[in-house]
Amino acid sequence: MAIELYWGSGSPFAWRVMLTLEVKGLAYESKLLEFSKQQHKSPAYLALNPRGKVPTLKDGDFVVYESLAIMAYLDRKYPESTIFGRTAEETGLIWRTICEGESYFQPAGDKIVRPLFFGKDLDQVDQIQQAAETLRGELKTVDERLARSRWLVGEQISAADISLFPLVQLLLRAASKDAARSFNFGFVPLAQSFPNIARWVERIEALPNYQGTYPPHWR
Amino acid sequence: MAIELYWGSGSPFAWRVMLTLEVKGLAYESKLLEFSKQQHKSPAYLALNPRGKVPTLKDGDFVVYESLAIMAYLDRKYPESTIFGRTAEETGLIWRTICEGESYFQPAGDKIVRPLFFGKDLDQVDQIQQAAETLRGELKTVDERLARSRWLVGEQISAADISLFPLVQLLLRAASKDAARSFNFGFVPLAQSFPNIARWVERIEALPNYQGTYPPHWR
Repeated sequence: MAIELYWGSGSPFAWRVMLTLEVKGLAYESKLLEFSKQQHKSPAYLALNPRGKVPTLKDGDFVVYESLAIMAYLDRKYPESTIFGRTAEETGLIWRTICEGESYFQPAGDKIVRPLFFGKDLDQVDQIQQAAETLRGELKTVDERLARSRWLVGEQISAADISLFPLVQLLLRAASKDAARSFNFGFVPLAQSFPNIARWVERIEALPNYQGTYPPHWR
Repeated sequence: MAIELYWGSGSPFAWRVMLTLEVKGLAYESKLLEFSKQQHKSPAYLALNPRGKVPTLKDGDFVVYESLAIMAYLDRKYPESTIFGRTAEETGLIWRTICEGESYFQPAGDKIVRPLFFGKDLDQVDQIQQAAETLRGELKTVDERLARSRWLVGEQISAADISLFPLVQLLLRAASKDAARSFNFGFVPLAQSFPNIARWVERIEALPNYQGTYPPHWR
């Protein structure tokens, strides 16, 4: 039975899984849910994922949700082109990088992305600037790591790159909105602020089938 | 060379790693840092972990931080008594449960634990009650899962149990503070509110060497 992926356009978490499937060369059936039609809250979908969030993966009879869990499942089920490391040390560093993204980058990113995308709480300037400061620090750390190696951990693309990339893309998109100008975040142009991250983004954009993973409504 | 664990009393993240080491039967050298003396911000420690947080694990020359990353490293390096599943499906469900804890339980828990432990923002009643509502929902889900099996995923203790347990203990400790009474959280007594979680807590407390992992300053 085919792998089925339930996803929504613009979800960085769904994007992670699409990139994982492409990097591992796994065919899958795309099940695009329309957030605007509340398809992620339909009874049929809630039976698969009671949280009503994307992504959810169905592989035969097995259902799993939460993006990192799907990635860990896929890598164990289909170990070719592993994304969680070839040694225990790589595994540790990959998960360390993922956890740093989840604990520091993602919550701070959320405090900027939500106001800029939905126009809500844009007047909470102090909170937004504080989040931006955190993000500049995190981006600097990532940029320094990418000065030393092509990928965040090891000699090939891993779950560390795949999990962070959509969060970076989401932040860049938010930072390019008109409403972002007055904040002077200093994220863009990326090639100027964080040149190693800019080259890493280009490397990921050059992956086979990358275009097929790009959020359709962002075009 | 011995495994060295840098930890601090009361850190749920450090507690996870101590439980992991005990469950896997791995000997280690305990390096207890005193938060009150800022030992986690000393130059020597920052050289190991630039974030100045606990835990950090050193295994020979290899250093890794972020609790879940340490757990993933240890399980791959020392695969006996695996805590990340015997099949791809178990791996997926274990990481799903961990991610749910990180994404929903932990941030909500933080909004209750911090005010009650440090007396700050205790007047943000709406925010605290909203977090409590989220936590009651998460605890209910966990309780229902534990009605069906002894452990959160599969037939033996896994990283899903180990990662959640210290967060639950921290919450219960906060909920037992005098200042918590007026909130009527409904978390304790646990045996009444969430009986299956209460039995699961007892099961973990009965693990060999559990007492050695218990935060010393909580006694």
